[in-house]
Amino acid sequence: MFNKILIANRGEIAVRIIRAARELGIETVAVYSDADKESLHTILADESVCIGPARSTESYLNMNAVLSAAIVTGAQAIHPGFGFLSENSKFATMCEELNIKFIGPSGTIMDKMGDKINAREEMIQADVPVIPGSDGEVFTSKQALAVADELGYPVMLKASAGGGGKGIRKVDKSEDLVAAFESASQEALAAFGNGAMYIEKVIYPARHIEVQILGDSFGNIIHLGERDCSLQRNNQKVLEESPSIAIGQTLRDKIGAAAVRAAKAVGYENAGTIEFLLDEKTNQFYFMEMNTRVQVEHPVTEFVTGVDIVKEQIRIAAGQELSYKQDDIKLRGHAIECRINAENPAFHFAPSPGKIKDLFLPSGGVGLRVDSAVYNGYSIPPYYDSMIAKIIVHGDNRFDALMKMQRALYELEVEGVVTNSDFQLDLISDQRVIAGDYDTSFLMETFLPNYQKDEK
Amino acid sequence: MFNKILIANRGEIAVRIIRAARELGIETVAVYSDADKESLHTILADESVCIGPARSTESYLNMNAVLSAAIVTGAQAIHPGFGFLSENSKFATMCEELNIKFIGPSGTIMDKMGDKINAREEMIQADVPVIPGSDGEVFTSKQALAVADELGYPVMLKASAGGGGKGIRKVDKSEDLVAAFESASQEALAAFGNGAMYIEKVIYPARHIEVQILGDSFGNIIHLGERDCSLQRNNQKVLEESPSIAIGQTLRDKIGAAAVRAAKAVGYENAGTIEFLLDEKTNQFYFMEMNTRVQVEHPVTEFVTGVDIVKEQIRIAAGQELSYKQDDIKLRGHAIECRINAENPAFHFAPSPGKIKDLFLPSGGVGLRVDSAVYNGYSIPPYYDSMIAKIIVHGDNRFDALMKMQRALYELEVEGVVTNSDFQLDLISDQRVIAGDYDTSFLMETFLPNYQKDEK
Repeated sequence: MFNKILIANRGEIAVRIIRAARELGIETVAVYSDADKESLHTILADESVCIGPARSTESYLNMNAVLSAAIVTGAQAIHPGFGFLSENSKFATMCEELNIKFIGPSGTIMDKMGDKINAREEMIQADVPVIPGSDGEVFTSKQALAVADELGYPVMLKASAGGGGKGIRKVDKSEDLVAAFESASQEALAAFGNGAMYIEKVIYPARHIEVQILGDSFGNIIHLGERDCSLQRNNQKVLEESPSIAIGQTLRDKIGAAAVRAAKAVGYENAGTIEFLLDEKTNQFYFMEMNTRVQVEHPVTEFVTGVDIVKEQIRIAAGQELSYKQDDIKLRGHAIECRINAENPAFHFAPSPGKIKDLFLPSGGVGLRVDSAVYNGYSIPPYYDSMIAKIIVHGDNRFDALMKMQRALYELEVEGVVTNSDFQLDLISDQRVIAGDYDTSFLMETFLPNYQKDEK
Repeated sequence: MFNKILIANRGEIAVRIIRAARELGIETVAVYSDADKESLHTILADESVCIGPARSTESYLNMNAVLSAAIVTGAQAIHPGFGFLSENSKFATMCEELNIKFIGPSGTIMDKMGDKINAREEMIQADVPVIPGSDGEVFTSKQALAVADELGYPVMLKASAGGGGKGIRKVDKSEDLVAAFESASQEALAAFGNGAMYIEKVIYPARHIEVQILGDSFGNIIHLGERDCSLQRNNQKVLEESPSIAIGQTLRDKIGAAAVRAAKAVGYENAGTIEFLLDEKTNQFYFMEMNTRVQVEHPVTEFVTGVDIVKEQIRIAAGQELSYKQDDIKLRGHAIECRINAENPAFHFAPSPGKIKDLFLPSGGVGLRVDSAVYNGYSIPPYYDSMIAKIIVHGDNRFDALMKMQRALYELEVEGVVTNSDFQLDLISDQRVIAGDYDTSFLMETFLPNYQKDEK
């Protein structure tokens, strides 16, 4: 086992990792920007190293600064958390070259899964269902029309070299296809120097179902059941739960097996998540993408399985075998996570940095966990993500978990900054959410419009 | 189910009960003394009623005031917590007469188990092993000598009508018996107007092992495994764990079955605890007493079984059947609780009331729970128990739990008052505690003398 690891992150996930490492008897090194001198991760770690100014490109994304901190402090491994450098294959490879263990998959695997067309090909080979779409790239509107007509509408046109929302069009009917293709392809050419597109059928309505997997260096891969993350605002998850109300044991076994096949296909090592879209009417699920890191919502899986995912990540990276076999994993009860953000729901969810006063985090009783990076008197800097805490509950069943979350949100008190805590309370009090009757469009298209109307 | 219950207690247990009730959708009424206007239980409850001055005899022990509050607010039931009125049979009976459900056993059952000699008789009838001792009361020193010589030394002489440590003597050898008996009996006569004594063999070395049981109004009784509470200072538990390192599955089944027999013998209803002394050399266990209420250390059992004991108490009182059968109860992992008291270990553990500043309660990660009644800026009043929080951890195994507790105690910060947090950290870092090699005398006779020497 490692003696010392460096955590290349900030906020609650950095704190989470420090705590896991300490419980394993491992010393921790925090890195921090000028803006994070008083942050909890900086305070809690055994050592801490300033790696640059507030801007993350100059600190948390500065690979040389992070690696220097690791070398200077003698850290044997780096845990990247999520975001920042966690899915940067170049960084993973640099770690490897410096003989510092990157706690995650290799850069090669990241690249394989990061390239969407390549990942899709891998999945087809591994017999993992993918969203019906074009076989590879499409270069002309005539070709595109033929593909789209065969897939059936609506379809999504996506720039092959794309990213950041550029070169993307949703097309609802055949008549609109040619014009949309031309415009998207030109936009892609201008933005990426490459006008090639690919076309996917739109799965709608759909649930966002993701499967947590763990793989060790001996080729053992298991899955830890699914999470339902369909409640999203602008593609940002807001509330996550496990298990999904839409999934029975037969489907769970099937989607879990598909996730394990996906991970095995690329020789995956460490913790990862396979994201799927689920068509509830047909119970058909489709591979979306793989996240090659720990996720924000990992605690719901920890609650229902009893597995400490972050500790397993560290053990795997240290060369140990998985602590669990697939048969050891039994889902117990129901877990829900609400992300608490310093943001103002009444003002387009604008970030709300500032100094926290009169903080009271809910605690106590059975099945409640708060992962946070805040303390009384802490000033939330304006430079980073607005998530300041996660409240996670575990009940005997879904209703029990919802009641527990209601209790926790009722108790939560944060003065000095605005948070989305009341918004979350309203969300879990919505009849559709209580019934579990929602898809990925529900929050944006149904809940929010009515909510904002009510606010006025 | 009840619509509204009153919590006849204060501190963390009152908060714990309020939270459980709220999660069941039940409204809560807090009662508070003048000193507890700003206490967390007063703040968190839906309603709160002042029931008198700071002195608990005039508030929390004032039965008429508590019952009036229940009537005025329309509470259908009263949860007494632990301490205060929780084992007062008169109070339980008064509730019954007023048609307010007392969340606990009936006054009759309390009386049965509260009378030590009667309880002993009941246990013998139920085939539950009791500490070898005199058959009933002993009136003369000659009779006493015969009994003691047969039991073997050391023995304990106890006033039959006793309490508060009066009329108690430990006798190590036959020669000392007569003099000790005379003096204890006279002391008992003076104190209670009754010189009758009883004699028990001293079980030493011994572990304090207690079994949590739950019984419903349909006569179903189950046990939730054992807790080891051998780490005690002046007969006050300091740290508790479940399961006990001294108990294997065979013995667990045996002691569990004995506890269920004990509870069945008296027709027990609601949550209770059967306390035993365990002689580790022979694996023989002996009934000590029954606690007819929820206990401070109930969370360790909740962690290893997944049962919410307080919610079960409320459900049972509402006339529901137990949510679990004996076969449903499987112990998972290992749980430890450390009591955090506002007291000064360097000063004979003198209470340390005062205003709390810079409070940081550990949280986050897998298997950590903090039950507390404190918040930043809260003033601990000098009138009550010094326990301000309980830290409870749950690990895959005992070592894992110890590491987790170490992490939690390391993080805990309470300024403004002195706490026993460092003392607890030192205790769980002791080699004997790490090895689980301790009995009821360890803390007082081995750990503390060395500890205080080190302090100097």
